[in-house]
Amino acid sequence: MSNSQSIIDAGRWIDAQGWCPATGGNFSLRSNDQEVLITASGRHKGHLGEADLLRVDLDGKPLDSTLKPSAETLLHTRLYQLDDQIGAVLHTHSVSATVLSLTTPGDWLGIEQLEMQKSLSGNQTHDAAIRIAIFDNTQDMQALAQRVAQRWQQGALSWGLLVRGHGLYAWGRDMAEARRHLEGLEFLFACQLELKRLGVQQGTCA
Amino acid sequence: MSNSQSIIDAGRWIDAQGWCPATGGNFSLRSNDQEVLITASGRHKGHLGEADLLRVDLDGKPLDSTLKPSAETLLHTRLYQLDDQIGAVLHTHSVSATVLSLTTPGDWLGIEQLEMQKSLSGNQTHDAAIRIAIFDNTQDMQALAQRVAQRWQQGALSWGLLVRGHGLYAWGRDMAEARRHLEGLEFLFACQLELKRLGVQQGTCA
Amino acid sequence: MSNSQSIIDAGRWIDAQGWCPATGGNFSLRSNDQEVLITASGRHKGHLGEADLLRVDLDGKPLDSTLKPSAETLLHTRLYQLDDQIGAVLHTHSVSATVLSLTTPGDWLGIEQLEMQKSLSGNQTHDAAIRIAIFDNTQDMQALAQRVAQRWQQGALSWGLLVRGHGLYAWGRDMAEARRHLEGLEFLFACQLELKRLGVQQGTCA
Amino acid sequence: MSNSQSIIDAGRWIDAQGWCPATGGNFSLRSNDQEVLITASGRHKGHLGEADLLRVDLDGKPLDSTLKPSAETLLHTRLYQLDDQIGAVLHTHSVSATVLSLTTPGDWLGIEQLEMQKSLSGNQTHDAAIRIAIFDNTQDMQALAQRVAQRWQQGALSWGLLVRGHGLYAWGRDMAEARRHLEGLEFLFACQLELKRLGVQQGTCA
Repeated sequence: MSNSQSIIDAGRWIDAQGWCPATGGNFSLRSNDQEVLITASGRHKGHLGEADLLRVDLDGKPLDSTLKPSAETLLHTRLYQLDDQIGAVLHTHSVSATVLSLTTPGDWLGIEQLEMQKSLSGNQTHDAAIRIAIFDNTQDMQALAQRVAQRWQQGALSWGLLVRGHGLYAWGRDMAEARRHLEGLEFLFACQLELKRLGVQQGTCA
Repeated sequence: MSNSQSIIDAGRWIDAQGWCPATGGNFSLRSNDQEVLITASGRHKGHLGEADLLRVDLDGKPLDSTLKPSAETLLHTRLYQLDDQIGAVLHTHSVSATVLSLTTPGDWLGIEQLEMQKSLSGNQTHDAAIRIAIFDNTQDMQALAQRVAQRWQQGALSWGLLVRGHGLYAWGRDMAEARRHLEGLEFLFACQLELKRLGVQQGTCA
Repeated sequence: MSNSQSIIDAGRWIDAQGWCPATGGNFSLRSNDQEVLITASGRHKGHLGEADLLRVDLDGKPLDSTLKPSAETLLHTRLYQLDDQIGAVLHTHSVSATVLSLTTPGDWLGIEQLEMQKSLSGNQTHDAAIRIAIFDNTQDMQALAQRVAQRWQQGALSWGLLVRGHGLYAWGRDMAEARRHLEGLEFLFACQLELKRLGVQQGTCA
Repeated sequence: MSNSQSIIDAGRWIDAQGWCPATGGNFSLRSNDQEVLITASGRHKGHLGEADLLRVDLDGKPLDSTLKPSAETLLHTRLYQLDDQIGAVLHTHSVSATVLSLTTPGDWLGIEQLEMQKSLSGNQTHDAAIRIAIFDNTQDMQALAQRVAQRWQQGALSWGLLVRGHGLYAWGRDMAEARRHLEGLEFLFACQLELKRLGVQQGTCA
């Protein structure tokens, strides 16, 4: 499948889950060391076509297009710079990710005792707590990308990160792994939110 | 796409989201300064055809049809009169909009700290609270349209308005923008309702 | 559309809403004064074919079929006997109807202040409370049909009735009206359940 | 329908319900006394093809394939060994099953007063409480299969079993019955979770 088609298909599936409402979200695939294919700004991500995608360099600058890349392009390209194993990035908006990040204080969302933690590469058991980084939201993407890079220096982040009241960035070596991480994380978030509704304190870690 | 097809497609999508149950809801598009295309009363809005639409003037009177326009036609046409930038109006019924408007006292629903506020035209940041007007429900559409017009004089309303225990009117310059505002508002309502379930006081403004 | 096709289509739609899981539910249409077309027992109601339907008389006896009519056929035919304006009956199982009927004490579910009450024929306003009859569940269909008939003598029931922890019977003059009543009632139930989750006491009537 | 197609179809339907996210879940059919057809590890269960299935013996060893059988194959084959009436096993992950099993202490989930209990073979009434076995989660499938076998000696388990924070194993004489049990159990879990949200103590049994 072409890289374009892979992004178009991901968009259709993500829209069907309700995770990219109202032109929200943006998706990208690394083409090579120098180049990323990414969705343009302002398009509904459930009905993408080839003409809604553009090539950018790793600083987020368009290579051969007059399309406006998404405002969040900088965070995509920073992730590709931080880890050369990252091949695809999916930024989505779900009610679970938005509300959970807004109501979880501190820098991490802790998750534990859930089998589906194993859907995140490298986890062999439900029995070790994992944590997903949370960043406060800002409209200054340069600053946000900088904060992500700084936190990365203290240890690589895995699978995805949350922006508070905003949404999720999930990534993987390729589109299939990024989709698996996205689907796995959204399931874990839905469970955590349900536990929160029931008043169960779970997965708190520092 | 023809204006008819644009309304028919919107209806299919809105039905798939569960926002126009049981023949509820009505949708319109401004054709020109004098004329609006609107759904007829009593049809299921998920299965519209050309024969379910009629032309009305800006006072809501049918121009060349024996179809009965929706009872809420007057509110559609009043919105077109109040702001000549409005090109499409979508009136929908979701559980979120119904319950949130019913359980929020006062004249406004406040929303803050949510990135998806940016899906509403003119919002550049999550960091400024916005508010959506709420009106008490009535079966007297003339009176409701009058109240909307009166409140408008104190400052134009933006993106949509809620009728308590009833539903949402979302609008935009064209159908694409009206759909974006509808989808964005419904996402924001779903988040607010979830926060309310969790007992989080958020977005209270006067 | 043939009567068979009308039931088959209703089943597909009801299954897509999640209201007839696990072969649950049964649907019927009155053919004439003497005869009803109804779904056979044990079939998944989302994938019906002509061979899954049979004709019964108004006492629920098969007319020309070796198929086993649904266990609940007696309640369908009793409804047709009680009101000759009833032309279609849809018996469904939703989580909302099940939980709401289980957690609402007494003989009625009260609903008020919701615009969608108008989706139920004869209601012109949100401003008058309505009520839906609730019956305790039993496996003795003869007894249940008897109790429905007895309560009917004190005043005809409208639109539908709930069986506690079991589900909804919705009806109408024809399939279109029965589907509208079903969809309207399910929306109202979803709102009531959401209000209950929020701890809002609403719609209590005797 | 071929056994392969029967598994492929079940996967599509289960994925549409959201019960096998992120390559989770595994499904099998007994071919004969010696042999089971089962899904391979690591495939998304919503998009299975013939090449994603393999034959194993009743000890879970691949018969003629280089595919890696699912990690949970051992539990499937143990179930086939324990009861020669079991013809199909569906292991799924839903939010309801995960959260309900995690928040229900003890060895059993009790369910009572719900009509849909009758969707589980052998139940003739809503009026007798049923219970579904819960097992603590472990990554040691040999140990888990052993614990299931031990509990079985005290009385055969029926319809399905829950693994805490992990998911459901549902079974039946054939795929149709396994699907019915899965759909019925998931409906019952959704009701129980809703009752829990409302703070209703129900279905507690030892």
